[in-house]
Order: sequence, then C-alpha cells, then structure tokens
Amino acid sequence: MAQAYAVILAGGSGTRFWPESRRARPKQLQALAPRSQSSLLAQTVERLESVCPPERMLVATSRDLLPAMRAELPALPAEAFLGEPIARNTAPAIAWATSEIAERDPDAIVIVLPSDHAVEDPTEFRAVVHTAIESARDGVITTIGIRPTRPDTGFGYIEVGGEIARGVHEAIRFVEKPSVERAREYVAGGRHLWNAGMFFFRARQLLDEVSQRLPKLAAGLMNLRRTPSTERARAVEELFAHTESISIDFGIMEKLSKMHVVPGSFGWSDLGSWQTAWELADKDGRGNALGPGEGAALVLDGSGNLVRNSAHQPKLIALLGVSDLCVVHTDDVILVLPRERAQDVRSVVAELERRNARDLL
Amino acid sequence: MAQAYAVILAGGSGTRFWPESRRARPKQLQALAPRSQSSLLAQTVERLESVCPPERMLVATSRDLLPAMRAELPALPAEAFLGEPIARNTAPAIAWATSEIAERDPDAIVIVLPSDHAVEDPTEFRAVVHTAIESARDGVITTIGIRPTRPDTGFGYIEVGGEIARGVHEAIRFVEKPSVERAREYVAGGRHLWNAGMFFFRARQLLDEVSQRLPKLAAGLMNLRRTPSTERARAVEELFAHTESISIDFGIMEKLSKMHVVPGSFGWSDLGSWQTAWELADKDGRGNALGPGEGAALVLDGSGNLVRNSAHQPKLIALLGVSDLCVVHTDDVILVLPRERAQDVRSVVAELERRNARDLL
Repeated sequence: MAQAYAVILAGGSGTRFWPESRRARPKQLQALAPRSQSSLLAQTVERLESVCPPERMLVATSRDLLPAMRAELPALPAEAFLGEPIARNTAPAIAWATSEIAERDPDAIVIVLPSDHAVEDPTEFRAVVHTAIESARDGVITTIGIRPTRPDTGFGYIEVGGEIARGVHEAIRFVEKPSVERAREYVAGGRHLWNAGMFFFRARQLLDEVSQRLPKLAAGLMNLRRTPSTERARAVEELFAHTESISIDFGIMEKLSKMHVVPGSFGWSDLGSWQTAWELADKDGRGNALGPGEGAALVLDGSGNLVRNSAHQPKLIALLGVSDLCVVHTDDVILVLPRERAQDVRSVVAELERRNARDLL
Repeated sequence: MAQAYAVILAGGSGTRFWPESRRARPKQLQALAPRSQSSLLAQTVERLESVCPPERMLVATSRDLLPAMRAELPALPAEAFLGEPIARNTAPAIAWATSEIAERDPDAIVIVLPSDHAVEDPTEFRAVVHTAIESARDGVITTIGIRPTRPDTGFGYIEVGGEIARGVHEAIRFVEKPSVERAREYVAGGRHLWNAGMFFFRARQLLDEVSQRLPKLAAGLMNLRRTPSTERARAVEELFAHTESISIDFGIMEKLSKMHVVPGSFGWSDLGSWQTAWELADKDGRGNALGPGEGAALVLDGSGNLVRNSAHQPKLIALLGVSDLCVVHTDDVILVLPRERAQDVRSVVAELERRNARDLL
C-alpha cells in the first residue's frame, strides 16, 4: 500500500504577530499556541508524527529560513527541507515538493499542511487526517473543512455536498471571503466549512493537474527532474524565476471537477492576529491573558488585556486602569495597541520598512 | 555680612514616578525635568551655585541614600550630607541642618529648598532668591510663593498682603489644599500663591522658634550640640527616635506671627506625577511626548501619549491606535496607564509591597 508523505508549508513571513514574529523568526517558528512552549512548526510535526514519520516529511520554506528550520526540527533529515529562492505562493512550493515525493513513489499519498496553525485536539485531528488520506487513496483530491464556530469574514468557505463515505463529503465549491451577512447564513445553514489549506492527494495525480493547469510550472519541474542532482540548485532558481506566483487554491483546487471534503472539529485556529491569540489564551477572572510566569504581569483595574512578555528578558509588565489592550514585549520592542486594532500591526511593520529599520523587521 | 547657606531637602521617597523612581533611586535622583539629562537634585544644586557655593550647602537625606547622594554631588564635601536615621518629615531635618549651620555662624542666612522640583527660568529664580535672602536678612522668616497658573487643588496656598519692600510682601496666612471652586477663586483673585516649600531665615531665629514650638526637638538638638563629635551618630539616632514627625509648615511656619513672601514666576513645577511630566515635556504635533532619542518611539494613529524609554536599554516603543497613555520602560518594568490615572501609580507600588517584590520597589 502506498505510503503517506507530508508537505509542511513553512514559507510564510506573516507580520501580524510582529514584534514576536520577525523576518528571520516568522510566525511558524514562534510559540504562539496557548499552553505550549513549542513553536507552531514543531507542534505541526509532532501532531503528525504517528501518521507520517519524520523521514517522510518535507518542509517547504524560503531559502533564507533553511538554517532556522533545520535547527527547529533536528529529527528531520537535511534533504527534507526545500528552500524556495523567491516566494511564489503555494502552488509552486507544493508542486515542487510533490515532484520530489513522486520521484521516490508516484503513488504516494501527499498530505499538505500549513505550519502556522493551532489545533487543540490532536487526537481528533489525526482521526480526520486518516479519513482524508483514505479518501485521497480512493483517487479523489481531498481537503479538510473546519466546521465554523463564528461568522468569520477572514476565511474562504467550502460548500459541502452529500456524504460519500463515512465522514467524506462531496465538495461543491470554494467560496471567497464573504460579507458578515453571508457568513452568518453559512454558519446557520451548516453547509459551509472553513478552508484551512489542508490537502490530500496522490503525488502523480497532483502533478497531472499541474501539467494541465499550470504548464510553465510543469515545464520547470520537468526540467528540474532531468537536471543532475549536482546542478539542481540552479534549476530550482530557474523554476521559481519563470513560474507565476499563484496559490494552490486558485491555480488548481478551485478548478477541479471533483473534490472531497472531510469536515473536522478539532479546535483549529489559524492564529490570525494578537486578537486570536487573546481569544485562545488562558485568562484570569477579568479576561486578562497574562501568559505563563507568575508575577511577570500585574493588572490593576483593567480587563480583557493580552500581555506577552519576553521569554529571554522578562520584565514586570504593570497595567493600571487600561482594558482590551495588547502589550507585547520582546528583546528589542514594546508594542501597545487595542485588541480591536490587532489587524493593523502590519501598518507598524510597513512604517518600519519605510524607515529602513531592518533590525526591527 | 552674614553668609547664605543652603539646606537641600533630599529625603523624599516619592512613588508617583515609579518605576523610574525607586527606593534606592528616588525622584530627586532621576532626570525628570524636560530637556535635561541631569537629576533634579543636581539641577537644584547647579541652579543655586552662584548664590551659595558647594562648601556652604547641606543635603538632608535618609541615611540609606547617603552613598547615592554623595555620588550624585561629588563637588560637595562629605560632611555636607546629613543622613536621617528615620523619616520624621521636614521639621527635624531642617532644624538639625540649621543647628549645624548655626554652629559655624549663628547669624547665617539659611535657604531651604526641596530637591525634586523643576525650574524653567533659573535666572529669574535666582533673582527671587536674592530678594528672599535680603528679606530674611532684615529679620523676618520669608518664603517664596509661586504665582498660580491653574486652579490646582494639590497645593497649599499662601494669602499675600501688601508690598513691604520691592518684591517682598506680608504673608497673611497659609491655606490648606482647596476645593476646585475655591482654587478658581484664588487664581482669579490674584491674592494667593502656591506654597512651594522654600524658606529663608537666620539660623538662630529658626532655632528660637523650634525652642518655643517644638521643645522635644529643641532638647534633642541641644543634646546633639553637647555630644563630642565622635559620638554624634548615636545622638542623631536619639534625636530622631524621640522627636515627633512633623512638617516645618505645620510645626513652625503656619504659626509665625510675622512672615514675608516673595512672589515668583520662574516656570516652577513640583513634578507631581507622570501627568505633570507630560505637561512639561516637548511634544510632537499630536501631543505625544516621546522623549529624547530619535526613532526610539513610534506612534501611529495616537495622540497625547507620554513615552519614557530606558536610558540604559532602550527598545523601540511602538504605539498603535492608543491615546493619552503613559508608557514607562525601565530596566525591569514596563508600566502602562492612562495619563488621567497618573496619581494612582502609588497603588501599583502598594500592590508590589503587598507581594513583597522588593526588587521592584
């Protein structure tokens, strides 16, 4: 029986968790999940280990991040890490990794997972993953759809059809990020799931789709496969230089004539902002999320605050008479903003880019 | 002609500028005045130097603070520093220092000044001081009264009578901290000045008043004067152990049958809280006081904030979408509070005392 391989997408350079996430230490390398001191990436690998051992995992990331990634995941062999020379969104990264897997076994089942999400119930997660693997083994590209818990307008949705096998449904279509009204309808109707960017397919099958829909990318991969291993670095550069930047959703998944979806509820979060981090965190009786480390934070006459202290150099963070703020302390930055402005952290990052403050990015 | 001596009161342990002011480094040792990197104490000495040279200055402080005080004022001789074994308010401190001066010259003019205030116009300050010295030389205990610039309810006021000599008025009476309505009347009426705790008198004259009004303190001083210099440390301890804790205002000044006051306007501030620090500070076009150090603070979409960065370990302090906050960063603390709550910083200090967090006090 064909074995399962995992492709972990770890190329993101998300700025919404600045100042903890940085160009050199992006979100997936940060311990942002509640009740854990591990990075999101390490948790992603750990969560998957009983499904797919480290020697069958690939990590697709940017070339600059390779040393940090290898250091974070010492159990993975050196060749498990694919370094993209330039960011070209998810389709080229997934296609390249899949072609590496296909070289070993064209019938392999490939599991594609983001590296920067949180899962509260890993046991339930693995049960859903096993169902999705079986669906992919049956020859249909499969995704996991998260049962929505609120009318979130920040996600794409997947409309679900009838149950085809135990836990496996027909995916009717992908829906773009909706309005609030539409999102409320989706949650009430029970027929829409969040698209969490998790995909399951046979290696050869995905490469066939790439050949049909993204011919430039397919040509680059073909060239890469013909290149002797000693010259592959240059071939990878050419591949990324000449392919278009496109997501796997838009380039392939939304265009498939047939797709399956496995609905899942395992406490998933995309950890989209400091607001999400506050929602997931343990809180005191007044809704203050003060993080680990007793006595490291003190709130008098305030509620609903998120405090993140530096792990290396914690200081007493004392809040008096303020509510619903995020206060984030790292080795070189102190950030203060209202929780409701969490999405705008990127504007601080943009301003620092304008000032050319490289050390702080 | 009798010379002028200065008694600088530096025993305060103010908590309203926590976390910059600490037990071991109280407010007078901090650089809290705008546009200056010197401590308030060093500025007090500097402001007075042309009136009274360092060898005629005494610094009354707590015994614990003696090493820090000596380090801060290396130009003063070692014997200039009087270390109070326990805090007993201003009357014992001033009486002790005056008795030391009287031993050198009973006719000396004594200038008593707090060490933790700010003065924007030192030239005008010195002109007022010279007038007050001349008034004291004429045999009447004299104070400086600050012309009020707002109806502040945090100060005591002095009611002013007719002009006796150029710039010198009769002081009619001391008035306790007033209600807002009363304070508005005072400001509008032009007959009330702020009591800034500055006093001028002949040494012997003050000691006569102490003998009349504070006999226990006078007896302790008498005993001290009779004690051989090698045993004086013990005599000082006895003096402070047996005297009552009382301010010079309440113990002596408010009870005088005759007193003079010199009105002054020299940009005086008692620097009472972070709110006052913000009021005095240089601000950007949106009322943000970001302190010295370009690029050390960044405010997006916010106004009226006070940012105080650590001098030793500055970090980028980034504020997004918050207004009228104080953010104070020291080597071991980050404090965030609304400016309007500045008076309540002491409640944070009280909570840390309750937690026995000595390192942070």
